[in-house]
Amino acid sequence: MYTVIHCAIAIAFAAFISGCLGAPFKSVNTCGYDVCNLGQSDKLNVHIVPHTHDDVGWLKTVDQYYYGTRNDIQHAAVQYILDSVIQALLENPDRRFIYVEIAFFWRWWMQQTEDMQNTVRKLVNEGHLEFISGGWSMNDEGVTHYSSIIDQHSLGAEFLRDQFGECGRPKLGWQIDPFGHSREVASLFAHMGFDGLFFGRVDFQDYAERNRTKRMEMIWKGSANLGAQSWLFTGILPRVYTAPQSFCFDYRCSDEPIKDDPHLYDYNVPERVQAFIDAAHIQARSYTTNHIMMTMGSDFHYENANEWFKNLEKLIKYVNAQQANGSDVNLFYSTPTCYLYALNKDNQTWTTKTDDFFPISFSQHGLWTGYFTSRPALKRYERYSNNILQVTRQLNAFSNSTLRQAIFPLNEAMGIVQHHDAVSGTEKQHVANDYAQRLSEGIDSVIYVINEAYKKLLSKENQSLPVPTQFLCHFSNISECLPIEGQDSFTLTIWNPTIQPIEDMIRVPVTKNYTIRNPTGGFIVAELIPISTPMKNIPGRTSSAQYELLFRAPIPALGFNTYYFQVKTDITIEKKSTIKVTHNEACILQNQHLRIEFDDQGNLNNITNQNRNFTVLFSAQGLYWYTSFPGNNSSPEFQASGAYFFRPLTSNTLPVSNSRNITCTYTNQVQKALIIYNNWASQEIKLYDGARIAEIEWIVGPIPIEDNIGKEIIMRYDTDIQSNGLFYTDANGREVLERKRDYRSTWNYTVYENVSGNYYPIASRIWIKDNKRQITILTDRSEGGSSMHDGSVELMIHRRTLYDDSQGVGEPMNETAYDKGLVICGKHFLIVEPPEYSALYHRPIAQHLYMNSISTYALSNLSYDNYSNSFRQTWSALTESIPYNVHLLTFDQLTSKVFLIRIEHYFELNEDDTYSKSVEVDLQSLFRNLGKIIYLLELTLGGNLPLNDMKRLVWQTIDNESSYSKSTDSNSLKSTVVTLNPMQIRTFQVTLQ
Amino acid sequence: MYTVIHCAIAIAFAAFISGCLGAPFKSVNTCGYDVCNLGQSDKLNVHIVPHTHDDVGWLKTVDQYYYGTRNDIQHAAVQYILDSVIQALLENPDRRFIYVEIAFFWRWWMQQTEDMQNTVRKLVNEGHLEFISGGWSMNDEGVTHYSSIIDQHSLGAEFLRDQFGECGRPKLGWQIDPFGHSREVASLFAHMGFDGLFFGRVDFQDYAERNRTKRMEMIWKGSANLGAQSWLFTGILPRVYTAPQSFCFDYRCSDEPIKDDPHLYDYNVPERVQAFIDAAHIQARSYTTNHIMMTMGSDFHYENANEWFKNLEKLIKYVNAQQANGSDVNLFYSTPTCYLYALNKDNQTWTTKTDDFFPISFSQHGLWTGYFTSRPALKRYERYSNNILQVTRQLNAFSNSTLRQAIFPLNEAMGIVQHHDAVSGTEKQHVANDYAQRLSEGIDSVIYVINEAYKKLLSKENQSLPVPTQFLCHFSNISECLPIEGQDSFTLTIWNPTIQPIEDMIRVPVTKNYTIRNPTGGFIVAELIPISTPMKNIPGRTSSAQYELLFRAPIPALGFNTYYFQVKTDITIEKKSTIKVTHNEACILQNQHLRIEFDDQGNLNNITNQNRNFTVLFSAQGLYWYTSFPGNNSSPEFQASGAYFFRPLTSNTLPVSNSRNITCTYTNQVQKALIIYNNWASQEIKLYDGARIAEIEWIVGPIPIEDNIGKEIIMRYDTDIQSNGLFYTDANGREVLERKRDYRSTWNYTVYENVSGNYYPIASRIWIKDNKRQITILTDRSEGGSSMHDGSVELMIHRRTLYDDSQGVGEPMNETAYDKGLVICGKHFLIVEPPEYSALYHRPIAQHLYMNSISTYALSNLSYDNYSNSFRQTWSALTESIPYNVHLLTFDQLTSKVFLIRIEHYFELNEDDTYSKSVEVDLQSLFRNLGKIIYLLELTLGGNLPLNDMKRLVWQTIDNESSYSKSTDSNSLKSTVVTLNPMQIRTFQVTLQ
Repeated sequence: MYTVIHCAIAIAFAAFISGCLGAPFKSVNTCGYDVCNLGQSDKLNVHIVPHTHDDVGWLKTVDQYYYGTRNDIQHAAVQYILDSVIQALLENPDRRFIYVEIAFFWRWWMQQTEDMQNTVRKLVNEGHLEFISGGWSMNDEGVTHYSSIIDQHSLGAEFLRDQFGECGRPKLGWQIDPFGHSREVASLFAHMGFDGLFFGRVDFQDYAERNRTKRMEMIWKGSANLGAQSWLFTGILPRVYTAPQSFCFDYRCSDEPIKDDPHLYDYNVPERVQAFIDAAHIQARSYTTNHIMMTMGSDFHYENANEWFKNLEKLIKYVNAQQANGSDVNLFYSTPTCYLYALNKDNQTWTTKTDDFFPISFSQHGLWTGYFTSRPALKRYERYSNNILQVTRQLNAFSNSTLRQAIFPLNEAMGIVQHHDAVSGTEKQHVANDYAQRLSEGIDSVIYVINEAYKKLLSKENQSLPVPTQFLCHFSNISECLPIEGQDSFTLTIWNPTIQPIEDMIRVPVTKNYTIRNPTGGFIVAELIPISTPMKNIPGRTSSAQYELLFRAPIPALGFNTYYFQVKTDITIEKKSTIKVTHNEACILQNQHLRIEFDDQGNLNNITNQNRNFTVLFSAQGLYWYTSFPGNNSSPEFQASGAYFFRPLTSNTLPVSNSRNITCTYTNQVQKALIIYNNWASQEIKLYDGARIAEIEWIVGPIPIEDNIGKEIIMRYDTDIQSNGLFYTDANGREVLERKRDYRSTWNYTVYENVSGNYYPIASRIWIKDNKRQITILTDRSEGGSSMHDGSVELMIHRRTLYDDSQGVGEPMNETAYDKGLVICGKHFLIVEPPEYSALYHRPIAQHLYMNSISTYALSNLSYDNYSNSFRQTWSALTESIPYNVHLLTFDQLTSKVFLIRIEHYFELNEDDTYSKSVEVDLQSLFRNLGKIIYLLELTLGGNLPLNDMKRLVWQTIDNESSYSKSTDSNSLKSTVVTLNPMQIRTFQVTLQ
Repeated sequence: MYTVIHCAIAIAFAAFISGCLGAPFKSVNTCGYDVCNLGQSDKLNVHIVPHTHDDVGWLKTVDQYYYGTRNDIQHAAVQYILDSVIQALLENPDRRFIYVEIAFFWRWWMQQTEDMQNTVRKLVNEGHLEFISGGWSMNDEGVTHYSSIIDQHSLGAEFLRDQFGECGRPKLGWQIDPFGHSREVASLFAHMGFDGLFFGRVDFQDYAERNRTKRMEMIWKGSANLGAQSWLFTGILPRVYTAPQSFCFDYRCSDEPIKDDPHLYDYNVPERVQAFIDAAHIQARSYTTNHIMMTMGSDFHYENANEWFKNLEKLIKYVNAQQANGSDVNLFYSTPTCYLYALNKDNQTWTTKTDDFFPISFSQHGLWTGYFTSRPALKRYERYSNNILQVTRQLNAFSNSTLRQAIFPLNEAMGIVQHHDAVSGTEKQHVANDYAQRLSEGIDSVIYVINEAYKKLLSKENQSLPVPTQFLCHFSNISECLPIEGQDSFTLTIWNPTIQPIEDMIRVPVTKNYTIRNPTGGFIVAELIPISTPMKNIPGRTSSAQYELLFRAPIPALGFNTYYFQVKTDITIEKKSTIKVTHNEACILQNQHLRIEFDDQGNLNNITNQNRNFTVLFSAQGLYWYTSFPGNNSSPEFQASGAYFFRPLTSNTLPVSNSRNITCTYTNQVQKALIIYNNWASQEIKLYDGARIAEIEWIVGPIPIEDNIGKEIIMRYDTDIQSNGLFYTDANGREVLERKRDYRSTWNYTVYENVSGNYYPIASRIWIKDNKRQITILTDRSEGGSSMHDGSVELMIHRRTLYDDSQGVGEPMNETAYDKGLVICGKHFLIVEPPEYSALYHRPIAQHLYMNSISTYALSNLSYDNYSNSFRQTWSALTESIPYNVHLLTFDQLTSKVFLIRIEHYFELNEDDTYSKSVEVDLQSLFRNLGKIIYLLELTLGGNLPLNDMKRLVWQTIDNESSYSKSTDSNSLKSTVVTLNPMQIRTFQVTLQ
């Protein structure tokens, strides 16, 4: 029996729905594959797929799109699309329609009467309206993190499951608009139970070759680790996602309608029928079966669905009537799902693909690689927001607060921001502001949950003192936390969301000096370190703090420590004797593991791994810029660099300055070199005591444009590593793909852009290596990156362009704040290890970077003794350690006794001798504080189907491989111990006693 | 019992409907005034009127608009509007909608299933959908002829009556877009049973004054002859016909929708509600009752009706909710009919108006006077087509052919061409071409009816020879009739559609000489006269005829004569001795009545009426031009002259040439003076033997524009008549209004344009007079005309401008043909009589001009004897004469025994001692050949309601006059003799035994 209970979305706005609905309609075989028209075997079967593509924000905000506000910017109004489509489906039972973006559908749904909801349920249950892909948005694939891709798909899937049951479950991925396609997304989709994936954009060279060789459809092997479970049938649409030329019948098109009244002028049935038959035959040339799919719709189409449907029905009628005259073209309403099913039933064998679709070119000089970096602040804020979201879920769950609905706004905002014109940075500025505001308001809303959770977790039994209110210091990244400034005492509580204990280096910006007590009451060693001048000068920083307190904080796994800060009675700042500073001298940063040498010009000369006893020489390291191509886009040669496209004027980079100042600082906890290039660019290389990695904190901006030159700023690492044209980049923070400069593995690649054509999306890491040495650079957000020559790695960290690149956004990529160009600060983490030891560090550190510990502050008048008597200062959900190669991806409380969790093996095969192996974990260990697991149900990755019920379509490759794979021991679970294979994610619904 | 049978439209396309439906639904008091919401007495009641304004051709053709073709020109698709509105009305029974243009509705209706038709019938019967005005189009008021206004309204009314019964009967006029308003239209509407009229455009000065003084609504006294029966409540809409600013919710607007979901961003209910309340209060300031009407719609709106209705309903909900907070604003869905009814129930008294709304100014320099002349060829073709239509109806009826449905295409085309962007000339060129084509195809289709009728009328009993096929020579106006060229024999049959016998001067262009026999076999005197060089040079004239045969043909009333032409055996052309010609000599044209003197420079010096013994001296007569203002329309000062607006650069006119050549020709039948100005302008003044009027035939064009100067050509008549600032112009070919130069009778008129501001539409005639003398000029089409100084009359006959005037058409008024500017030829008819005798001539001649005799030719190999033995050569429907002041306006056979006729007294009160009196006519006399009248039912002018059932709302004027008028003896008819008062039109359904 399937008793998934997760109706929190439905009740997220209690005003609308009073309780948990469950799934009111059961499938009665009137939806899904059973209702597919499979055409006629002797005909060219044309699957007519009415659809709308509704961007969850782009030129307008999501709510402007929903309501149809600001139609002066772009005419688009999703509320009317849904009104209209539902009406049209009711009018004619032959009609079918797919809907994709649940962010919009949910908005509409909440405004409907129960009668209308039931009407729509009937349409879904009878297969007229089909949800496809079903994410909250159609997520970007380049710059998104797998954690958030899964979340946003789960959010949509949960809504659909709750409201529509099995008939509402999407059966395939529909990524028709994103600007490149990630193998990891294919793998995730396969694990969500999707039977296929369709998308619209590939490289124009790739398209031409596939078109010519009838390889538009294939089996994509989504993982190098997970086998056939990760395979996904994948189809490239012939015209991105539009109708054949001249057959767009939407309001916003000007194509000729079918004029079939012979009594009126301009009767055009014969020529329109012939044109359509021709279009069908042309399309069929690129595909292998006697089925083709025609996507009949486009951006925000079907605002008046009748116009489309009315003409489509005339087309179907008159084209099919030609069969009597020998025509082989057979039209019928269908869906991508049914088209997929028809292909599956055709018993073909299919070519395979093992690499990904990155980067892709729109034209010779238009490569979708700029967006890998566009809007770096939003990209970081998105990652930070996810961090808060995951921590909040954990706090809610472990405190048994059952406040899931209060987390919904942040969850929803995160779902929206995954959209391919959101975190991608390809939206208009006002829309980017809206996304940031949504995340901000989402975070504001979960502060309540965090406090409710800590009320329980911090309180000692039989203590009645109110728990001090916890708050976040969002501006910690610029060393600012105004609420604690000048306070005599405050607490800092740090939650570690990983299942391993960690040691964090904590930086607290202060205006006074404090003693700090650890959870057991001991005073800890903290150093008061001056905040760097570049940091203090960041526009918008209003803090008067000149120093930050730096200390080492060990935090238990899945738990917290509280540190108590008490102002030092001696108000004079400590003597600075513990800190040694040099200016423009050669210097060496060194700890137990690494040694980093700079010359007196501020050049990083080498890094030595003292444990492994090797050195990497640097010929250059630091900040450079490309000149943005200043085109008018009138032809491919004049393609400008912009929000989507990165196109440098030349392949040459210029250093951001010809000289630099270097200041090295040595304290007990940290040694660091601050390199200031000019008044808008600096980097600080830090080596913490005991750290195995170096941290590079950079501050860039406002990028000057007074010279009317757009600039794209990179951080470059030029080493003596013999990388031999190869480099390695992650996909969405998970599996890593090998890249080869100026090369594509599936076609004979003609290089038109030798820089941009080698850029790849870096969601979490990039490395180069030779036999002995590997430098791995981890990022705190998605960036574009490459290796332009052997030994070199570069990451684009900021961009400011002066031209729109004519892909629709209509604005140059020119962010400002405080009337100046935007200042970005961020971090790289540098791992210098032998290849065989690198995963050991980059794997866990990458997980910590996206699931960082979260600090909350609280003000309290209580003395330390009173505080410690009343409140718990350390706590962990775990009593036993969990294997190092296991990651807790999701820990979400559905109801008081039911949880949704995902656990993950986060090492790939063969990358670490120890950890690239299967591992067992006892789920009960996660629930020590919550109760005994009495029921465990393994679900698909999206959480909307018992894994046992997942029956994916089976495909054959041209090499006679079958995609058939038996799902693992999902429902046969007799114990709470589960096995994880490398890169496997498993999703469970856990019921406690 | 009401048994009107006129279902011909419904069966016009027999493929759609198999029989006559009658009126399937009876009114059950769920429509009309009974279902009106009359608001609340203590509130400001805002009648929300959802509407669409669908131009029956303008920037696109009527069928392009219907289907939504060529949306690149203008997005507009009426098929979807009607689809969508019907759906929207079904969704919510509160909703109401009005539909106006039956040309579109009929197109849509014919494509609907019977189920859908019944659904719509239900909506109409329940008052949700209301037809308003209900003409085939929303006719222009300036340049239309009353005959065609009545026809086009009857066509729409008949369709509505047949399909919807009483609930489909429009109750008021809705002329929201035309560019000026005619008193005659008000009068006709009153006689159609309308209770009121609303329109949108008045002079901006008039608007300001009425707005200020709350005189936006009034009782318009529509006739100087017909008393309160012609009064019509008339309202001026506040914003032409649009919604209050920012409250347009159509797809094509960008106004903010009502965003009422507090969970989404940008909730805007409070500010939108306040803005609407403010708009209502502002509008209410201009009106006298506590009711106001807000027209919610515009051109081609409601293509997705849901968008409008959804937001309107939110507006109604939230604005009315403010009543709880003391707001006095009360919103509800309504119709103009219900708004009118609410005003009527308010028991106010109203100001009155006796003049008309011509001309009107859009701005200081933008006067809607150019369109009085724009596209003179189309204007003439429309008048000619009506002539054919009326003659065809008569032939069909008198031959008892019952082929009414075959006449429908011409009737339909005429209905379309009455549209205010059709015959007005304010459409794009390709649309003007479409109108002309429709008329042409309409005429082609009635050739069949004409032949079927003549088969009966021409055939003698017991004769079996087939009747020769009749054909029209459409190019007679340029002396071309190719089918008869070179023939040895042919017949010419001339139908006289008036109820008085006439004598026509017949001109037959020939390439040979012929003897001509009259119906009794006698040879008649005919003269072979050279065709003038300007005529022969008209581009497109392909005839090789150099001569035309001119002869006098007396034609019986409502009947025909056939003339038999036999080529003369002597192939040499007659000696020309009977014709005298002078070149550039002074000359005198003279007959029994008139004497016209020219000097040797071609100047018309004087005209003497020899009967009345007076002379009118001419200081000038002939062709002049105004320079079109070449503006860019960026502000009123830069307003260009264009299709709508006539704006001369200065008030000066230039003669089309400084010298002229005059050739006078004297024959027995005619004396004429051909005056050639240059290679593009000429006039020929003709005085036929026995004629009481002079005919001026002008040929103008191609107007040269090589100098980049737009030119507007006038024919001017400058006399010594002491006209004292006054002149007289007809309204739609009926009543004549006195005009005073630089003066408006209802407001203190500021003159900004001293030429254009004095232009008036001349549908049929203009005159000036003094005590003794009157010159009346009759036109063959509508033209703009004025009297710019005392003694002068001018008529604008052709225009060619180089700039669009920014009223939407987007093209200059620059017609071409054969790659040159269009050549126009036309006629003026000059009456020089004392004022008291002028009506005696201009009244009947004007009627003959629009219901001219129609010549059909036929080729036959029969000798005259064989022809005359087999075929009837003369015939009249009448045996007794009908009074001279009676005109047969309509004679239409509905079914074999049922006819619709209109008879008319066509003299005004006090304009003729003899004929300006009531007159009796026996209708039976019209049916002598058809049968005995057994039932006579008087109808409203539109033919859709028994006059006895017409109960118009009663209004009170501020002078305590009541509009109440008892209808005449309509249903009490005991005999077939009916009385007509001056200017009265009476409509009857006649049933024969």
